[in-house]
Amino acid sequence: MKKLQNDRDLLVEHCLEGYTAAHPDVLALVPGTHMVERAQKKAPGKVRLMMGNGAGHEPAVIGWVGPGMFDLNVVGNIFSAPSGDAIYAGIARLAAEGPVLLIVQNHAGDVLNANLAMERAAAEGLPVRSVLFYDDVASAPKECAEERRGMAGMIFYSKILGAMAEEGAGLDALVAVFERVRGRTRTLSVAVTNCTHPVSGLPMFDALPADEIEVGMGVHGEGGMGRLKLPTSAELAENVCGQLIEDGEYRAGDRMLVMVNGAGGMTMMELSTYFRDVKAYLESRGMTVAGCKVGNYLTTQELSGVSLSLLAADVEMLALWRKPCSAPAF
Amino acid sequence: MKKLQNDRDLLVEHCLEGYTAAHPDVLALVPGTHMVERAQKKAPGKVRLMMGNGAGHEPAVIGWVGPGMFDLNVVGNIFSAPSGDAIYAGIARLAAEGPVLLIVQNHAGDVLNANLAMERAAAEGLPVRSVLFYDDVASAPKECAEERRGMAGMIFYSKILGAMAEEGAGLDALVAVFERVRGRTRTLSVAVTNCTHPVSGLPMFDALPADEIEVGMGVHGEGGMGRLKLPTSAELAENVCGQLIEDGEYRAGDRMLVMVNGAGGMTMMELSTYFRDVKAYLESRGMTVAGCKVGNYLTTQELSGVSLSLLAADVEMLALWRKPCSAPAF
Repeated sequence: MKKLQNDRDLLVEHCLEGYTAAHPDVLALVPGTHMVERAQKKAPGKVRLMMGNGAGHEPAVIGWVGPGMFDLNVVGNIFSAPSGDAIYAGIARLAAEGPVLLIVQNHAGDVLNANLAMERAAAEGLPVRSVLFYDDVASAPKECAEERRGMAGMIFYSKILGAMAEEGAGLDALVAVFERVRGRTRTLSVAVTNCTHPVSGLPMFDALPADEIEVGMGVHGEGGMGRLKLPTSAELAENVCGQLIEDGEYRAGDRMLVMVNGAGGMTMMELSTYFRDVKAYLESRGMTVAGCKVGNYLTTQELSGVSLSLLAADVEMLALWRKPCSAPAF
Repeated sequence: MKKLQNDRDLLVEHCLEGYTAAHPDVLALVPGTHMVERAQKKAPGKVRLMMGNGAGHEPAVIGWVGPGMFDLNVVGNIFSAPSGDAIYAGIARLAAEGPVLLIVQNHAGDVLNANLAMERAAAEGLPVRSVLFYDDVASAPKECAEERRGMAGMIFYSKILGAMAEEGAGLDALVAVFERVRGRTRTLSVAVTNCTHPVSGLPMFDALPADEIEVGMGVHGEGGMGRLKLPTSAELAENVCGQLIEDGEYRAGDRMLVMVNGAGGMTMMELSTYFRDVKAYLESRGMTVAGCKVGNYLTTQELSGVSLSLLAADVEMLALWRKPCSAPAF
């Protein structure tokens, strides 16, 4: 495998050591753990935001820890949820200084282990609530939205709730806005090339034909809706936006937050072109782009692929989106 | 070719349209050109910083335009310097509002066309100076430093001079600091995999064996010092730091600025690990990391590769490095 590594048993540890050392003013690695927290804590009493997730998606989610976003991120092994014990340890660490909101991206292992952690936290009376995020229109029909996977639309609640919590919002208010954001967020991805698992050295999924892309692939190579002949960027934007607009019931006049998230190996030239075409298509449907992120954030190693996430934002969400944030990867 | 594109004749245009549209508060595309400038101009009279370079290296250099870095970037075709006329147009645009410093990365086409532009600007009496940057220890011996290529060490002067110019420094002061930065900056790259030219669809260079990397490759696939069996991250850090320390005559006690620049397809996990190992090696030699950037900035499409740039910074440089900057890709 042609990846720059040391001991394969220490992949996650070395990654976390390096990433936190590169951002010492903002991030700290909790000694002896795979937890990344803020170097400078929020004032006591304010709600703490946290998440657990597998490694291998960097800079997410470690790079979204910092003032204006998450307070702590518990990192598992490569593409594996952290254990219930590890998530519990994160909750307990934060709960010593304020109420905790644990946000869970909808993947089986993440949900299972979050539930284990929440049961233990509840038994100990810790001040914590958890919420579940899903946004991937490819993974289940609209009637079963809660079965959908959690994807890169997470950027929206991470930033919006992060700003709210910074200002002192309580758990109830945060959960209410979270649910509104989730209700108005949709994501659809495509994979263009394969990538190599950093432990096994094997391809993450079966090879795609030279002229085809996979639509709706998950962030671990999970199957989606099927394959398409490689379209132009404008054709893909029309196809993907069309599906998201229909599923999300977005309308002319909506002010959209847009996330064009590269899976790792897609060039900024391609991501920028795709954003151009998404923006033009949304405008052709009477919508405006009120804010955006374009880059490789929530990645699947060096996969070339891109997901589009849309949120029809209200005035409160837009104001929170624009608040200051110093998480390294925002 | 599996890249997300529209018309191949419009690759650069669509990239620039999309990238500037994604950062509308900071960047603007000068209509009818391939020039990216600040959306909000500096106060008249202050020195303007500019550069011309080929496209295909995004987010550099367009993403380094903004308050605290460049005022304008003239973009050529893929991996091709912009014409003398285009660079001249950039100089003339900026010179209407203040003196101009044109910084040229040492590549034959860039130098040739910058000279054409400077001749015309001089003939018209425009207030402009140009300086040449070179940092790549692989491309010429130390005695012929001025024949070396300009690589990712450019981040150091871009940030440092950007902060100085913001504060009102004049051309002489900027050139003096530029020369000190150049004298103390060294870069060495390695390429791990190949990539595909976005116009021809062909590989950028001859395939590397499955277990070898190329040391000292340029940002357009130019040949370097030869090949190595794929080392561990720590071995590579020792090898590369060792060469840079020797060439740069860095010493125990030096406070280093460090740039770990991914070539595009190297994962953040690998880049973070490499930074960890570079930091440990520098510390083993008695140096400290006083600041750093770790990520995919000056890219060669989806190439997996990484360059290490070091600057032994003085107190003035460190203070300038830490000044605010809102260029989108800093």
